[in-house]
Amino acid sequence: MRIALGIEYNGCKFSGWQIQPKQKTVQGDLERALSEVAAEKICEMQVAGRTDSGVHATEQVVHFDTQVQRDVKAWVLGTNSKMPERDISVLWAKPVNTEFHARFSALRRRYRYVLMSRLVRPTFLTSNVAWDHRQFDLSRMQKAAKHLVGEHDFNAYRTVKCQAHSPIKNVFELSVTQDRNLFYFDIEANSFLHHMVRNIAGVLMSIGSGDHEPIWAKEVLENKDRTLGGVTAPANGLYLTKVVYDPKFNLPNAEFTLPKF
Amino acid sequence: MRIALGIEYNGCKFSGWQIQPKQKTVQGDLERALSEVAAEKICEMQVAGRTDSGVHATEQVVHFDTQVQRDVKAWVLGTNSKMPERDISVLWAKPVNTEFHARFSALRRRYRYVLMSRLVRPTFLTSNVAWDHRQFDLSRMQKAAKHLVGEHDFNAYRTVKCQAHSPIKNVFELSVTQDRNLFYFDIEANSFLHHMVRNIAGVLMSIGSGDHEPIWAKEVLENKDRTLGGVTAPANGLYLTKVVYDPKFNLPNAEFTLPKF
Repeated sequence: MRIALGIEYNGCKFSGWQIQPKQKTVQGDLERALSEVAAEKICEMQVAGRTDSGVHATEQVVHFDTQVQRDVKAWVLGTNSKMPERDISVLWAKPVNTEFHARFSALRRRYRYVLMSRLVRPTFLTSNVAWDHRQFDLSRMQKAAKHLVGEHDFNAYRTVKCQAHSPIKNVFELSVTQDRNLFYFDIEANSFLHHMVRNIAGVLMSIGSGDHEPIWAKEVLENKDRTLGGVTAPANGLYLTKVVYDPKFNLPNAEFTLPKF
Repeated sequence: MRIALGIEYNGCKFSGWQIQPKQKTVQGDLERALSEVAAEKICEMQVAGRTDSGVHATEQVVHFDTQVQRDVKAWVLGTNSKMPERDISVLWAKPVNTEFHARFSALRRRYRYVLMSRLVRPTFLTSNVAWDHRQFDLSRMQKAAKHLVGEHDFNAYRTVKCQAHSPIKNVFELSVTQDRNLFYFDIEANSFLHHMVRNIAGVLMSIGSGDHEPIWAKEVLENKDRTLGGVTAPANGLYLTKVVYDPKFNLPNAEFTLPKF
């Protein structure tokens, strides 16, 4: 039986998604908890987006195969009860047929980057926003963002460590919005290169702060040179917020909200 | 010279405001950091609202007296640099005349109570919202809240430990709003009794969940019996958000925002 899960996690507690010896990872903690619920070893869990160290998820999607029968409540609440640190929560569970694959069936991924612009460092969510003491101009960042929408070679926006075969990605949306001293960069693409969102956020921030003109986002893109892209924005501000699948899989929607003041 | 400060703190890290031997308190940490900046002992700091253990503040107001001259930047950024845990941030500082008193000049205090209604426990802000797996009805809580606005004897809404001489308080506003699975109780009064906001939140939650009718908020009030008020809502969800002073003091406004998803 194949089970899909929607999960949320606080990335600052983990050395990223992928299981590694002697490191606390999301995959490691989740497979351990699921194995307790299943009373058999759950491993080789598949994930929609392998997030880096420090990167959060409000709705990541994974799947695993198991021989045992458990009801949805056991996979959700039972698994959560086996992770008392509350840094990962299973939001929903759904039995799916083996045609579904958390990674290969994903049509689009959506990320949100959260930037707090404030003279004083934050006291709440200290590891959950990117904090910058400078001021940022919304319309400059919005202008710059337009240059990155569409299908492009994003080579200049990935790290040298990136193992993807092709740097061509299709960005369906890149919006920049502001709520008082918070800026949100929401980006949806078929998939992403390594550090792509954080490099885009870094370029937008350089433009918003006045260091570069909005056209620079396009120049970086067209030069295709990884060394021109400026600073990679910190992992703290990055959330995987949604994975889009074919509606035929009929996956549940997570309910997630953070308070606003 | 008298200095007023606006401060924000993450209450889950502290045994409340007031300095106590061998406890980590907001007053203790702040006086220690200010003393380092001033290079003289800063003590007997006065505060607008003495918050309990676990209660947060997005804009608490304090004042202290000192012989030394420092510019505003030193009181704000210098003091913050002496508190590397980032659980308290000085937001602003302003020299004031001795007519100003953080506690006695305060005309109104404003609190926000944040309730997250969700089947699954939260992963973010785990100590910064009150989480409840039940569902709550907004209009029932709004109806109940109306009974508590105005000048009343709030004896039933305080703890037996409360040392206030009079239980009569004037509630200028008590609003209940909803943003998806979050409920906000915003309450402004001249001042508050011990546990008054948490007891009001507890009564509203009992009404919102269907355990009691909206009129029960009024019945509890009129009975004046402290033992009838039901459960005190947890400290996690409570924030002191604003202290209102006469505009003649011309205090700065804090900029504070938490991200929203």
